[in-house]
Amino acid sequence: MEPFYNDYCCSVHPDILKALSELGSRNFSGYGTDSLSAETRALLLDQCGLKNHGTVCFMAGGTQTNAVLLAYLLKPWQGVICAESAHIQYHEAGAIEASGHRVIDLPGKNGKISPLEIENFCRRYEKDPTHAHMVQPGAVYISLPTETGMLYSLQELRDICTICRRFHLYFYIDGARLGYGMASPECDWTLKDLGALADAFYIGGTKQGALFGEAAVLTDRIDTDGLFPFMKQKGAVMAKGWLTALSFSVLFKNGLYMDLSKKAVGQALRIRRALEEKGVLPLYPSSTNQQFFNIPNEYLTRLSPHFAFDIGAPSDSSHTQIRICTAWSTEESSTGSLISAVKNL
Amino acid sequence: MEPFYNDYCCSVHPDILKALSELGSRNFSGYGTDSLSAETRALLLDQCGLKNHGTVCFMAGGTQTNAVLLAYLLKPWQGVICAESAHIQYHEAGAIEASGHRVIDLPGKNGKISPLEIENFCRRYEKDPTHAHMVQPGAVYISLPTETGMLYSLQELRDICTICRRFHLYFYIDGARLGYGMASPECDWTLKDLGALADAFYIGGTKQGALFGEAAVLTDRIDTDGLFPFMKQKGAVMAKGWLTALSFSVLFKNGLYMDLSKKAVGQALRIRRALEEKGVLPLYPSSTNQQFFNIPNEYLTRLSPHFAFDIGAPSDSSHTQIRICTAWSTEESSTGSLISAVKNL
Amino acid sequence: MEPFYNDYCCSVHPDILKALSELGSRNFSGYGTDSLSAETRALLLDQCGLKNHGTVCFMAGGTQTNAVLLAYLLKPWQGVICAESAHIQYHEAGAIEASGHRVIDLPGKNGKISPLEIENFCRRYEKDPTHAHMVQPGAVYISLPTETGMLYSLQELRDICTICRRFHLYFYIDGARLGYGMASPECDWTLKDLGALADAFYIGGTKQGALFGEAAVLTDRIDTDGLFPFMKQKGAVMAKGWLTALSFSVLFKNGLYMDLSKKAVGQALRIRRALEEKGVLPLYPSSTNQQFFNIPNEYLTRLSPHFAFDIGAPSDSSHTQIRICTAWSTEESSTGSLISAVKNL
Amino acid sequence: MEPFYNDYCCSVHPDILKALSELGSRNFSGYGTDSLSAETRALLLDQCGLKNHGTVCFMAGGTQTNAVLLAYLLKPWQGVICAESAHIQYHEAGAIEASGHRVIDLPGKNGKISPLEIENFCRRYEKDPTHAHMVQPGAVYISLPTETGMLYSLQELRDICTICRRFHLYFYIDGARLGYGMASPECDWTLKDLGALADAFYIGGTKQGALFGEAAVLTDRIDTDGLFPFMKQKGAVMAKGWLTALSFSVLFKNGLYMDLSKKAVGQALRIRRALEEKGVLPLYPSSTNQQFFNIPNEYLTRLSPHFAFDIGAPSDSSHTQIRICTAWSTEESSTGSLISAVKNL
Repeated sequence: MEPFYNDYCCSVHPDILKALSELGSRNFSGYGTDSLSAETRALLLDQCGLKNHGTVCFMAGGTQTNAVLLAYLLKPWQGVICAESAHIQYHEAGAIEASGHRVIDLPGKNGKISPLEIENFCRRYEKDPTHAHMVQPGAVYISLPTETGMLYSLQELRDICTICRRFHLYFYIDGARLGYGMASPECDWTLKDLGALADAFYIGGTKQGALFGEAAVLTDRIDTDGLFPFMKQKGAVMAKGWLTALSFSVLFKNGLYMDLSKKAVGQALRIRRALEEKGVLPLYPSSTNQQFFNIPNEYLTRLSPHFAFDIGAPSDSSHTQIRICTAWSTEESSTGSLISAVKNL
Repeated sequence: MEPFYNDYCCSVHPDILKALSELGSRNFSGYGTDSLSAETRALLLDQCGLKNHGTVCFMAGGTQTNAVLLAYLLKPWQGVICAESAHIQYHEAGAIEASGHRVIDLPGKNGKISPLEIENFCRRYEKDPTHAHMVQPGAVYISLPTETGMLYSLQELRDICTICRRFHLYFYIDGARLGYGMASPECDWTLKDLGALADAFYIGGTKQGALFGEAAVLTDRIDTDGLFPFMKQKGAVMAKGWLTALSFSVLFKNGLYMDLSKKAVGQALRIRRALEEKGVLPLYPSSTNQQFFNIPNEYLTRLSPHFAFDIGAPSDSSHTQIRICTAWSTEESSTGSLISAVKNL
Repeated sequence: MEPFYNDYCCSVHPDILKALSELGSRNFSGYGTDSLSAETRALLLDQCGLKNHGTVCFMAGGTQTNAVLLAYLLKPWQGVICAESAHIQYHEAGAIEASGHRVIDLPGKNGKISPLEIENFCRRYEKDPTHAHMVQPGAVYISLPTETGMLYSLQELRDICTICRRFHLYFYIDGARLGYGMASPECDWTLKDLGALADAFYIGGTKQGALFGEAAVLTDRIDTDGLFPFMKQKGAVMAKGWLTALSFSVLFKNGLYMDLSKKAVGQALRIRRALEEKGVLPLYPSSTNQQFFNIPNEYLTRLSPHFAFDIGAPSDSSHTQIRICTAWSTEESSTGSLISAVKNL
Repeated sequence: MEPFYNDYCCSVHPDILKALSELGSRNFSGYGTDSLSAETRALLLDQCGLKNHGTVCFMAGGTQTNAVLLAYLLKPWQGVICAESAHIQYHEAGAIEASGHRVIDLPGKNGKISPLEIENFCRRYEKDPTHAHMVQPGAVYISLPTETGMLYSLQELRDICTICRRFHLYFYIDGARLGYGMASPECDWTLKDLGALADAFYIGGTKQGALFGEAAVLTDRIDTDGLFPFMKQKGAVMAKGWLTALSFSVLFKNGLYMDLSKKAVGQALRIRRALEEKGVLPLYPSSTNQQFFNIPNEYLTRLSPHFAFDIGAPSDSSHTQIRICTAWSTEESSTGSLISAVKNL
């Protein structure tokens, strides 16, 4: 079975393993106070254009990062605006609500919410004479790329930023698959743009070849005085803080993060083209590593014994929704096999 | 500087690194649904005498484990009884309260609370005619060994268990350093005893040579139906669940966990003896890897440039409290140097 | 200005004031342990067909009642299903989320959710292979009548009850305006039906002539052991518990609750008829004390200087949404004036 | 039985009942937006020296007030310092922890904590190199008078205020029995002093003759922008906001609050003197309406059939702790009877 079902299923990139081995019996001070953590934080801030103007903290996973950071940003009576299909709305078991805040979901389109949609919601809230009885919007959450593999353009990010500032909302970006977004041929923004436009975001590691973990980036538009005790009380501070840092150090020192992402996105787009040539059109115009299709059941029957991918709900009596997901670890031979199989359908 | 300041400062045991390397590009299903996780859970349950009678779940760290499990066990109006010096009371930034529960601290002695102390507290609570206005005790928390390096005897564990069952309290054990407790020459209980007496406990990994993480063990006296979504919403489920399992698999398959623990405890006791021979008596009669002393400042001045250990508050004008902590990673040569230095004081 | 803008705007029914005066300097024991509270609880349970099979507790207001009871019923990883327009979703400032739970809103129709809609949601949840990562439905919330003044029929209540039991959901009814529902000519259920079908509900007082407060009714399908300390820790137990009980005692001893409700509903229906005769149709087919209309702006201009009612958003360039609300305190003369004014439009 | 067991047991002061009756069928706008509420807020602010420099909000009870205001003031990682015997520590069922914050109890003396004790605690916290792992103190809570009936002097209040400002702590005063404190012959401070020194406090109503409720006073050292939605989501905003205001209007317009308090304190001090003359000394040197004694069991046997008071734990084989509590409603004849009975012991 060739694995196309996720991007966190493969163990770890060999360069990270090598770096871990080379540590030998090196000792570190605890809770991220070590020099490797400090250097890695500085490296990431620099790449985000936030040298001396931000904070990086390492977390163990995406749900933890979203839940801890959004709870840190929001006032108790505030909620976070996002798309209906957002991970915090759909697949985090109510982590945001468990920390006391509403997820305010807007319909969006193809998994994206538009600047106008956000603005309209905020205007309606402000105009409602009873709005003190309502959940106040306090932040906007987008994922980049979205759950559907879609990207926001630089202009869209700028527009959302403008609206956030006008309505005093924090702009938060979930970058679980950030690399696969940046590696898209359609991507017209950089980490530095995110540093300038978002108030906080995270650079995904778990799905991008790291041993595990995410790097949360907070700009200095956020008061981070209480962040450490807050993370600590949420169980989000690891004694071996250097361990998460290590993955990011390896991934970001020499461009490995982008190299791996580009390879995966290239594979995804070649698979997409093969399916399109067979008349199977993508459900969303995704240019990243996740590709969704409405596949004829006959094709599904022939592909699924050899290729593992997510099989969703049936769309009608003869079609089924599937997701094909490439990863930093997807081998060229796997991709080749899948493309051949598609051609022979 | 020879490191005696903690047991989580060294990278990771080489056998774990080797096992990680040997995985190559193996793929795992996510969130602990893989076979390595399943096998490791079974292995641990078996060693705890809980085959088919319990659940193991892997967590990223100790504060997370305590906070998530205690919140899972307690009803909203319940608190957890523990010693004044307990980690949850002193050093977890209010994680228990952040999940809505009071930490009910009893004075204890040398870091331990006695069965009688717990019983008296519960009787006072029950007798108080206004107790519906008070925090109801819902669990007892002990650490094994304690923050002071002390152990509870099997009889004490049995007595606490008896009291817990009489007063309908869950009995929870924080085993961040469980191995160093089991490796003590004074230890008269086993993992199977914990499985029989405690309702839930965790086997520490972070401080015991694992890459990171803890293995929480829940007996079937606890309804675990909601445990997965609860952990998920607290950000305590890792996509790469197999990674935490891997460390425990290596540590527990062939007795490595106990071997490493014994070595560290042996070193600690030799250091203690050397200091005792110099007339420096331990603050608590610890027989585990943590040793606390009230050291003459003159000795401190001579040792501290060469040996790193925790330096606490001054006890009087001429003495200071220190902690010397050995670890799975403490080299014999380091211990030897420290003992020599002590002898030459 | 004749008041038609709400049902909690007038002070208090004179009979309650009289009963309060007659107490003189009577002393009561605290926190609802007095005999007046006990008798009133028994009276209400009896009327709900729950003699010896339920619990009544008095609360200070509707948001408090919803937030406290739903949080008491739900497990931490569960949410509550309701209509998009539900009070808990729209107008309680996120009280449900503030206690850690998601409000799962279904579209509904005219403010009501259908049994089928609930069932479909639950089936989708159960079928989703990743549902352990999602918010688990734990309860269904309806209001009776709804925010739009609509009623559920006995058959609909029975169907919702059946679905709740099949999917292990608590069935919770918000009865802030319960009397105005029971007084509707369309109502085909009684308090005893609610006692049999719902797991918990509340009988509104604040909007029904009480001094203030609501009477929450919990059937013995709910374990109420922890209810008192839970309410206490949420600030929902009043020292003068007898005071809330007093209003319900007066309202329920001799049928005053229904008499007042019937009068108000009769007035509402006469006003509705007058508007219908002018061609102004109600927005929802409400047969209770709240009537919503899409009124021509010309009419609005002529009525609003003399009659106070809720004025909502404009529906189009020439119409505006309004709510006319009668109450236990609405005087016949006010209603007469409004009807005359409508006839003269 | 003459009632001396509490100060919230009697119904309501007749002047308040009269004012309520005089309202007739007056209509009010909801949620405290009415003119009676506005006037009463202004009246109280004025008496506290906070005209245009503070906010008053009315709450239904003391536990609610403490829980809501402290949660509003504290950051998630902060706790509140108080005496071991404080109401929030002892008798609110964990309401503070239920909102996520630790109650940090200091031993105190006679129910009071000293400025020095607070300062020492804060210094220890600041000096601890691991304090980011600890609960950060964020506020100081005192009650005035305390649970033991004791008062802080103006100098003590000033000193606590100074320490609070130095260590960036909010200074919060629980005034459930504030009147009985101000009416003490030993009291050397006024409402204006509290307005100047505390950041927030509440003026008790429930125990002082009001129908029910408390008036919370927040100075403009607190940002109150989110206070309304926060209170709303905690279920602490009543639709009939004017009702709580009404009691305070009556109590504060013409000095009734102090008149009633003085009468009750005078009675308490006369009872105390009678007991002292019999050689029964008070447990604490209270000069307010609560008097605690260690009474010979023989006396207890003779008094308890005729006088209702709180009977606590036995102090030794021949003595029992009791509390005698006078109230705004205590009749002179009751006090006379008790004094006679004491003289005849």
